Amino acid sequence: MKNLLAVVLGVVCVSGMAAEPLVKSELKHVQQIREAALKSSLGYDILESLTTEVGPRMAGTEGDARAVKWAVAKFKQLGFDSVKKEPVTFPVWNRGIEKAEVLAPYPQPLMITALGNSVGTGPKGLRGEIVHFETFKQLTEAEAGKVEGKIVFISYKMKKTRDGSDYGNAVAARSRGASEAAKKGAKAIVIRSIGTDSDRLPHTGMMRYAENVTKIPAAALSNPDADLLLNQLKRGKPVEIGLTMTAEQTAKQYTSYNVIGEIKGYEKPDEVVVIGGHLDSWDLGTGAVDDGAGVAITMAAAKIVSEIKRPRRTIRVILWANEEQGLHGAKAYAEAHKDELRQHITGSESDFGAGPIWSFDWRTDGKSAAFLDQMALMLKPLGVEKGSNRAWGGPDLSPLRRDGMSVFSLRQDGTDYFDLHHTANDTLDKVEPENMAQNVAVYAVFAYMTAQTKGDFGFNLK
Amino acid sequence: MKNLLAVVLGVVCVSGMAAEPLVKSELKHVQQIREAALKSSLGYDILESLTTEVGPRMAGTEGDARAVKWAVAKFKQLGFDSVKKEPVTFPVWNRGIEKAEVLAPYPQPLMITALGNSVGTGPKGLRGEIVHFETFKQLTEAEAGKVEGKIVFISYKMKKTRDGSDYGNAVAARSRGASEAAKKGAKAIVIRSIGTDSDRLPHTGMMRYAENVTKIPAAALSNPDADLLLNQLKRGKPVEIGLTMTAEQTAKQYTSYNVIGEIKGYEKPDEVVVIGGHLDSWDLGTGAVDDGAGVAITMAAAKIVSEIKRPRRTIRVILWANEEQGLHGAKAYAEAHKDELRQHITGSESDFGAGPIWSFDWRTDGKSAAFLDQMALMLKPLGVEKGSNRAWGGPDLSPLRRDGMSVFSLRQDGTDYFDLHHTANDTLDKVEPENMAQNVAVYAVFAYMTAQTKGDFGFNLK
Repeated sequence: MKNLLAVVLGVVCVSGMAAEPLVKSELKHVQQIREAALKSSLGYDILESLTTEVGPRMAGTEGDARAVKWAVAKFKQLGFDSVKKEPVTFPVWNRGIEKAEVLAPYPQPLMITALGNSVGTGPKGLRGEIVHFETFKQLTEAEAGKVEGKIVFISYKMKKTRDGSDYGNAVAARSRGASEAAKKGAKAIVIRSIGTDSDRLPHTGMMRYAENVTKIPAAALSNPDADLLLNQLKRGKPVEIGLTMTAEQTAKQYTSYNVIGEIKGYEKPDEVVVIGGHLDSWDLGTGAVDDGAGVAITMAAAKIVSEIKRPRRTIRVILWANEEQGLHGAKAYAEAHKDELRQHITGSESDFGAGPIWSFDWRTDGKSAAFLDQMALMLKPLGVEKGSNRAWGGPDLSPLRRDGMSVFSLRQDGTDYFDLHHTANDTLDKVEPENMAQNVAVYAVFAYMTAQTKGDFGFNLK
Repeated sequence: MKNLLAVVLGVVCVSGMAAEPLVKSELKHVQQIREAALKSSLGYDILESLTTEVGPRMAGTEGDARAVKWAVAKFKQLGFDSVKKEPVTFPVWNRGIEKAEVLAPYPQPLMITALGNSVGTGPKGLRGEIVHFETFKQLTEAEAGKVEGKIVFISYKMKKTRDGSDYGNAVAARSRGASEAAKKGAKAIVIRSIGTDSDRLPHTGMMRYAENVTKIPAAALSNPDADLLLNQLKRGKPVEIGLTMTAEQTAKQYTSYNVIGEIKGYEKPDEVVVIGGHLDSWDLGTGAVDDGAGVAITMAAAKIVSEIKRPRRTIRVILWANEEQGLHGAKAYAEAHKDELRQHITGSESDFGAGPIWSFDWRTDGKSAAFLDQMALMLKPLGVEKGSNRAWGGPDLSPLRRDGMSVFSLRQDGTDYFDLHHTANDTLDKVEPENMAQNVAVYAVFAYMTAQTKGDFGFNLK
């Protein structure tokens, strides 16, 4: 009757009571979970399995399909209570071949990669003089005459920070540079990679075309190659480059899956705490830090909780489909589950690599201060500081958050994340097993405590 | 008459006296040279010029020819007293295309590069099961039956040290692995890169075929790709890979040049102190640390000496042709100058990157203790320790050393050298301007003092 009423009203009966601290016996379980997770190599082992047995898994590729199979099998092997796939359909982009070179004044090869969603140049390529802007903003302010018929080059270099906060400044060149350049008549755009390394490995990532602009090819240069172009430009002579890319956004639609494993709650199995990472990766590396780590951390955390003490509510681990090319899995899930949104008590996605977690933030109704203090106390031995009421929750939770769901951010140290992000260098060797264990411990504590508290964190939070 | 006699005897009249300490007024020049070099950006600027205006310059390529032109022009621009080219002829190796992938049990792309001198697979490639050895020695000890018809994989991982001393242990797999594998019937060999990094950039470098063995293709995997193969092998299933390489040793002979610039001695212009680096590089990077740095350090050192005080003897800067593919420039020079060998007082090649110099060694007749103590005193402010009588002198001086010439080794910190060595990552951004200045200062002090001392360091040293 209660469930029927819920369906009729389009909501479910959550407690309405603020999340309250756990009692002593429950805290003992939290400690046991924390210690077990720290001692376990499960997170690292899952990541080793994914990167070794699947590797690159760009959305719409064979690797995508293999990853889905791997995820279903891994959840089952770990003994999750339920495992299911939910379909996610999206258009297929192909990378094709990609190469570039300086043609004049000093011929040299250049290391580039096409940006996701970019069109190609045709197999014969194109050539043109480059016109340099230090920032995306400078490009927006430029007169069209300066750009017309040329290849735009934006050289902004992303700064390294623990929280990755310069990504926002840097990424406009990648996401919107082509449209801005095309409006002014450019024939192509090359940008310095959105990355903080100095390796000869360019960073891919998504770009979008504005409506009613000519779609021009867009590529990223490795940081050393961007330096080389700047050094050539310093000589004051026109710098001409050649660019050949067969990238294409195809007409084909592909259906992948969000893969979902659950540890069912003993009292309120329909209420869920959502953790997870995205299952797709870019194609250049094996997707170890982006986002194999998130997948492995959260699968391991839920599993370790289940081994110590099943919580009151369900822990739902969602391995999101096609995050990279536009949150397709997140949008499909939000749409498919919109009638159960109130049952989503809170959540956190792990999608910032495998560095240690150093802080946690929340987005709640402000009535759970005692619970948050207790969580801070439980996370302190793991080196995690208490943050503030400003959590984002991760990319794939953003549609749910927008619709009112509470979220947490378990903040990883991302100092080195943008050295590897979206490059061929995103491989298992970059991940420290002890950092994986710390992440698993934090996620396990978070998942157990939020699934176990009798109250909730509010809804429709602004 | 003196010169005629020298020609008749096939030797020249060198002093025969042991190198003696410089006098006070000369030491003042040493100090001025040292200070001027430390303040100068000339070494870095020359390196920036070479890597920007020429870039990759593998022996026998267009880049090789451009590098020779660049070197002649740069010596002239710097005002060297004489600039000349001496021909060096060698066979041409082409890299062609190179790709590899795991075919089973878990398909994934692999990042490889062909080893220099390797044959190709033909354009259709080959495929085979890999058979793993941890070391070259294990391969030599294996029974042929284990290897026949398979692809050998050697996974030895080079250790990082300041003096690069593990290179010797590691490099046998590269230089001799193919021959050993071929003797046992292997169809190809892939090795873990001889490198200390963990980047997705394989290290090329020279290999040789023994006589009377089938020439099989030889390639290096990046370190993360070698890790991946090991992780796949751990599953206990056969691991099959595909390999496509169109590398070829051609029938073509190419003539490049040793490019030689001199600062002439004011008293004994025919007696020379030889410094330099090799002008060729591998093709993957821009040859900044191998060996653009050596080229730039030694050109700048001689130039700075000449600006402060011309020494008694000539400083000869030799930019050696084709070091990488077999010391071709070194052998041609030794042959062309064999009758003037006794006029080569001493020398040192810079070919270990751009890390700071921390020690100097010598190879002398043991009669120059006071001079060596004085040199140690002059180098101490640069952070350089006094070493011992065990100098090697660098690769391109080895024929001259073998024939009796004294050499010095100005030892650079090579801790990071094998992160970059022979990879696409060998680019200008890896070089610190202050380290270049320190190197230039050490080379300038060395070149001035050894060219200025009245005595010499002996000959026919064992």
